[in-house]
Amino acid sequence: MKLAQPLQVLIDELLKLPTIGPKSAQRLAMFILKLSDDEARQLAFSIIDAKRKVFPCPICGYLTELSPCLICTDPHRDDTLLCITEGVSDVMAIERTGFNGRYFVLNKEFTLLKGSDIEQIDVKTLQEQIAKGAVQEVLLALNPDIDGEVLARYLARVIAPYGVKVTRLAHGLPVGGDIEYTDEITLKKAIEGRKEF
Amino acid sequence: MKLAQPLQVLIDELLKLPTIGPKSAQRLAMFILKLSDDEARQLAFSIIDAKRKVFPCPICGYLTELSPCLICTDPHRDDTLLCITEGVSDVMAIERTGFNGRYFVLNKEFTLLKGSDIEQIDVKTLQEQIAKGAVQEVLLALNPDIDGEVLARYLARVIAPYGVKVTRLAHGLPVGGDIEYTDEITLKKAIEGRKEF
Repeated sequence: MKLAQPLQVLIDELLKLPTIGPKSAQRLAMFILKLSDDEARQLAFSIIDAKRKVFPCPICGYLTELSPCLICTDPHRDDTLLCITEGVSDVMAIERTGFNGRYFVLNKEFTLLKGSDIEQIDVKTLQEQIAKGAVQEVLLALNPDIDGEVLARYLARVIAPYGVKVTRLAHGLPVGGDIEYTDEITLKKAIEGRKEF
Repeated sequence: MKLAQPLQVLIDELLKLPTIGPKSAQRLAMFILKLSDDEARQLAFSIIDAKRKVFPCPICGYLTELSPCLICTDPHRDDTLLCITEGVSDVMAIERTGFNGRYFVLNKEFTLLKGSDIEQIDVKTLQEQIAKGAVQEVLLALNPDIDGEVLARYLARVIAPYGVKVTRLAHGLPVGGDIEYTDEITLKKAIEGRKEF
């Protein structure tokens, strides 16, 4: 198929994005060509601008355009509770629950089982946060997989000297889930963690 | 949730794209922030560049950066067969079949049933194409819906004075489809259009 070269380039660029297949890329490209010049410029500029202005907060690792970030400078946050997450998207998800503690984002892609990247963790900054003295509990909000498990053990060891409480997210049935279709490990955890009614 | 403002702007811009919901927009934005500066610039530039350089071919209406387009200037195309489509995406789909005629793209979004936009059709350019004399058959490759039906009748009337053959895409079972789940109108058309085995 003969496509105008800049259109082909646009489709190829869109194809590099996650979850965008050939049909979506074509559809998005056609949509972009129908935008006004101003709208197309806004879209392009938002990419450049976010890329240029947004960086990880030096204290917590959350993405920010201010240093420190809006969460770190929020005086209404609970200083006693520090939540450690693997990525920024995890913070976004936890923020939607109304969680009001502070964060420490590891911001690394861990594939611990193949070649350990555990050395990349900025242990020093994490320890500095805890050493300030306000933190009483560290919540390890790590993904419930084997990497998360290895990571949790490592972090618990790093935090241990400070004598703060270390907690983890509960395992159990997802709300709206179905016992029949729940895998046996999750179901076992849900039984172990059963609560009084 | 407190998001860095340029990140929020990027997510809002991505949300304007078709088929992109809030979770996809967030995921795409996070992906974009992880790109290298060069990669992000390439993506942004491809939007601006396609928007700036690509336009409908003045002869056939297909999207092009050259005037006339690569299809119109291709000497190996069959001049006797002119295929009319509603949009550029239809041409892309038809090109994938190996079709080797020429095209005329209407490039309008027709919602004929609500307020007729039929006047927007560039009948003059279409008639000029046919009047050149090479065209022997006009294939109406319009969507199999009511708008396509109205459009087909209108175009057939416009083309009639030139005495060329007017054809339409066949209706029938989609390949790999299932008779049991085929709607009755399609099935009726498939029976009417049955072919000798």
